[in-house]
Amino acid sequence: MYKLLDQINSPEDLQSLTADDLCRLSDEIRDFLISNVSKTGGHLAPNLGVVELSLALHSVFSTPKDKIVWDVGHQSYIHKILTGRKKQFNDLRKFKGLSGFPKPEESEHDSFATGHSSTSISAALGMAKARDLKQSSEKVVAVIGDGALTGGMAFEALNHAGHEKSNLTVILNDNEMSIGENVGAMSSYLSRLRTDPTYHRVKDDIEFLLKRIPAIGGKVIKSMERVKDSLKYLMVSGILFEEMGFTYLGPIDGHDVSNLLNVLKNAREKNGPVLVHVITKKGKGYEPAEKFPDKFHGVSSFDVSTGKPLERPNLPPKYSEVFGDTVTEIAKEDKSVVAITAAMKDGTGLKSFEKEFPERFFDVGIAEQHATTFAAGLASSGYKPVIALYSTFLQRAYDQITHDICLQNLPVVLGVDRAGIVGGDGETHQGLYDLSFLRNIPNLVIMSPKNEKELKDMISTGISLNKPVVIRYPRGCGEGVPLNEPPKLLPLYKGETLRKGNQIALVAVGKMVNHANKVAENLETHGISTTVYNARFIKPLDEEGIKKLASSHQHLCVFEENTEIGGFSSGVLEYLSSIGMSDKILFRFALPDKFIPQGERDKLLAEYMMAPEQISDKLLNFLRDEGEQVDHG
Amino acid sequence: MYKLLDQINSPEDLQSLTADDLCRLSDEIRDFLISNVSKTGGHLAPNLGVVELSLALHSVFSTPKDKIVWDVGHQSYIHKILTGRKKQFNDLRKFKGLSGFPKPEESEHDSFATGHSSTSISAALGMAKARDLKQSSEKVVAVIGDGALTGGMAFEALNHAGHEKSNLTVILNDNEMSIGENVGAMSSYLSRLRTDPTYHRVKDDIEFLLKRIPAIGGKVIKSMERVKDSLKYLMVSGILFEEMGFTYLGPIDGHDVSNLLNVLKNAREKNGPVLVHVITKKGKGYEPAEKFPDKFHGVSSFDVSTGKPLERPNLPPKYSEVFGDTVTEIAKEDKSVVAITAAMKDGTGLKSFEKEFPERFFDVGIAEQHATTFAAGLASSGYKPVIALYSTFLQRAYDQITHDICLQNLPVVLGVDRAGIVGGDGETHQGLYDLSFLRNIPNLVIMSPKNEKELKDMISTGISLNKPVVIRYPRGCGEGVPLNEPPKLLPLYKGETLRKGNQIALVAVGKMVNHANKVAENLETHGISTTVYNARFIKPLDEEGIKKLASSHQHLCVFEENTEIGGFSSGVLEYLSSIGMSDKILFRFALPDKFIPQGERDKLLAEYMMAPEQISDKLLNFLRDEGEQVDHG
Repeated sequence: MYKLLDQINSPEDLQSLTADDLCRLSDEIRDFLISNVSKTGGHLAPNLGVVELSLALHSVFSTPKDKIVWDVGHQSYIHKILTGRKKQFNDLRKFKGLSGFPKPEESEHDSFATGHSSTSISAALGMAKARDLKQSSEKVVAVIGDGALTGGMAFEALNHAGHEKSNLTVILNDNEMSIGENVGAMSSYLSRLRTDPTYHRVKDDIEFLLKRIPAIGGKVIKSMERVKDSLKYLMVSGILFEEMGFTYLGPIDGHDVSNLLNVLKNAREKNGPVLVHVITKKGKGYEPAEKFPDKFHGVSSFDVSTGKPLERPNLPPKYSEVFGDTVTEIAKEDKSVVAITAAMKDGTGLKSFEKEFPERFFDVGIAEQHATTFAAGLASSGYKPVIALYSTFLQRAYDQITHDICLQNLPVVLGVDRAGIVGGDGETHQGLYDLSFLRNIPNLVIMSPKNEKELKDMISTGISLNKPVVIRYPRGCGEGVPLNEPPKLLPLYKGETLRKGNQIALVAVGKMVNHANKVAENLETHGISTTVYNARFIKPLDEEGIKKLASSHQHLCVFEENTEIGGFSSGVLEYLSSIGMSDKILFRFALPDKFIPQGERDKLLAEYMMAPEQISDKLLNFLRDEGEQVDHG
Repeated sequence: MYKLLDQINSPEDLQSLTADDLCRLSDEIRDFLISNVSKTGGHLAPNLGVVELSLALHSVFSTPKDKIVWDVGHQSYIHKILTGRKKQFNDLRKFKGLSGFPKPEESEHDSFATGHSSTSISAALGMAKARDLKQSSEKVVAVIGDGALTGGMAFEALNHAGHEKSNLTVILNDNEMSIGENVGAMSSYLSRLRTDPTYHRVKDDIEFLLKRIPAIGGKVIKSMERVKDSLKYLMVSGILFEEMGFTYLGPIDGHDVSNLLNVLKNAREKNGPVLVHVITKKGKGYEPAEKFPDKFHGVSSFDVSTGKPLERPNLPPKYSEVFGDTVTEIAKEDKSVVAITAAMKDGTGLKSFEKEFPERFFDVGIAEQHATTFAAGLASSGYKPVIALYSTFLQRAYDQITHDICLQNLPVVLGVDRAGIVGGDGETHQGLYDLSFLRNIPNLVIMSPKNEKELKDMISTGISLNKPVVIRYPRGCGEGVPLNEPPKLLPLYKGETLRKGNQIALVAVGKMVNHANKVAENLETHGISTTVYNARFIKPLDEEGIKKLASSHQHLCVFEENTEIGGFSSGVLEYLSSIGMSDKILFRFALPDKFIPQGERDKLLAEYMMAPEQISDKLLNFLRDEGEQVDHG
């Protein structure tokens, strides 16, 4: 029971509230968020940081007429609460439940679907130009974080927006800074500027800067010393944006509702593009999240009183951790191994590498394109870079993988994490396309391990190959196999027979090998003699092994956790067709040609008739029919 | 016979030359370039603009020890002349001839292969970090144009380079500006700044700016009024780069060798990243190219005395022109049609659209990512954007096509130009992968026309579909069919029978339909009854039509100008496999899984056994063997 929140069913209900009411409503919303996300899991800290900002935006702008584009979109929970989706929060990120990202099909208040970083300004500018052409009057707002602003396409969009001069409000949600009373930190930052020998313009510039950073509610920005990159200075001073044609407003305290309302109203009425620089605190209002905003960025269910994850059974290590640890282990012996991440050192397990080899570790920010060509540069000079990217974000570096790495046949190992079904993040994050879009690139070796032990072996094999290599592995925990042996080199471009039969052969890669094993067990109980073959290599294909299987079995079935178009099983089909044996393929088990929604992996596989029992039944039915045809034929 | 140039066989030979000698050598090199490129064709104007810069770079830096990365790379001709490849210029861009781009396999002086825009700073930073890790002492230089700097990945790289603080020289080759004596233009630019209401900092800033733009050899920058985007102001003032952690040197006159030598020596010795801003004139020293630098960017053979293209027979209009004209024609009726290009309005034929509908036309700069999501924003607001991109550059927008257009099923028509073999540009520009990397994206319709008339129909069909559509067409001239009829809507997802036989069916898309026709003619002369089927749609596939063909013919062959992995013919194979008819496919005629080099289309097709006669022979041999087997079987 919430005194104010219970009465809010649409943004219009905010109109009658005073600024004080909005403050109280903020408290209720934080309580609602913490209570719900502690049960369902989700992106907690980013949403706690934008409670006041979301309230102020919905007070000043009128969705769905006005358009708000949430960059990345995981900070849209309050927006969803305010636009009639409060009651769906118990199903957040679940199969058929509320999406954790904006989704136009879910609500007319979601103007644009997001999920990947740095798209909001481009989309918003498109909407603004559409409005200008239609000569209508709606307002368009993009809300983008300081991290997303390091993605190159955000810069492309700013550059074009400044040129077009359309009315457009960009909210820079800057949560790398905290607000405090320490003036000393500010002066130490400025003294660093003063003593930096590469810095030319000393005195004038500092005065200029000082004039442009207003005191915020009697306080000044505290943690300028945490500023990592020089971009930050440009942002705080507003120079970057003003030079690019934006009116710059800020920085302002993102937790001061009255001030937000004033500045947003001001921005709304201005002509041309406006950038409002808002300083927020990730995790604001929930102590554990304020202390560890990274841990609380995306969480599973947790205990509200302590902030600790709910008790979970002892699980095997995650694939990502095994990846990071193995690369670190190999890097101890091989000094040419360096590691690169695009702002995902936690998620990709590379934190251990950074700790061990800080000078050989590079976090380039949300910049997958640069990460990849930067790796090519290192590789062209004798190093062996390992990059870890999520499958879905790899799409951003597609041209660079082809044009900068593979064309020159450079020794870069790409760890493709979160490949296959990813669960709660849904459509925008599924890793179901990489085998298809990578397989057509010449020179590239592509492998996928059946378990975390094989992942170790593939990393060591990949690094030894001295050419472009992709290793594709799934989200989540390993299969629980022992990991104490050091990684060993796998026989090149060869699969392995895991179970030997003579009627039907199941050929699989990656986590689907376990699936094939289960299906084989089911089939054997029905007297069907079944071979299970772990192909290991998607490219080059183990042609000899597959030819043997085709020659010695009545039927082949191929398994992959990827779209059914153009992936591993298509490769097997292409090869068998080239030797006149394509009719040996009975079924290809893969995901259908559609965007696959959010949900637990098992539920989704079952939805698409890919549970082991469903597959066994399909095969048994087919073999029974075939047998009858033979009997009666 | 060149007095100086004849003696230059490696960069070391420059060491004995004075600045005056280098000036004379510049003249000889310009003469050499004009004389050669007028015969072979190639990128003339960009190279004429960097003669002095290339000489100065090779005088100050010592390749191959020092590394020079040429962004895009079409301006590397002088570099090639100076590094021992003078004699190969008569085979420039020809099959097995000298590449028009840097290519490490061609020379140790080419440190990195380029071709696509905006990669140089990333690659150079990778080399610089490798040097730091190795503790060696080579220098690393990236040479990037002002256009390439609008590509987001260049910004990602600048941001990272400023953070890393490694020694690195970035040469900004700024050729949008000309150098003259007109001071009035400068003051009019400044007065525009003064009167712009969105511009806050007036007086201080102008003085600041004035102090930072030095006079260049007694002259000042003339054409500041041509400055299109606000980025330029940031560049000239140096603010952008200095704030990002670079030492900014310039702007300097890129045709003044002595000054270049001084500034580059200075840059070479500085610590940390340095940006040298060099103002050059595209086409410098050849009047026709100075007057029309765009026309002389990339040229075919021409008459040196007039600058006019050599007489050519009357050719049909280019596919690009037909594309641009048709979109313009449709836009007259349908006011929701808007057009977008990423700095390629000439190449993609959209110049006519811009002329007719300037307010509905958007050139966003070299920014394929933004172009695509900007289109998605327009589409989400009721417009029907048409984007034209070259197949090879489409790779840059891969994530945005999937995540921003197709996931939301938005009505964007993507014209994929230069698909298939592109000729002289070679490996980096071949359009041989798009069918494979696009086919796995859900919701996308993909078509490819057999000729320019069908292209018109496909554009009109595509715009009418109200969903994401790709239309893929080749480089160069059409097939010469009449174009006077208005575009008509094609039957959806259906192919057409062009020739009816009953033994063998040739299924093709795009320009390969003509190929199939020729093969069919050959086969018919040998008494083989042959069907030719133009599939038109790559996705969704014309399943009914293909099933009928498979049922009514002994064999199917599939033709596509695309890699053999995952493209159209793989789609046909996947479908036939799903209905148990995959053994009907006899051959898939497609390009092999390797990077395809430069060369004329016919020569390359023959190289890969895809000339119509080669294909006919292969089929005839097979059918003969099959017949004998049947006879003797």
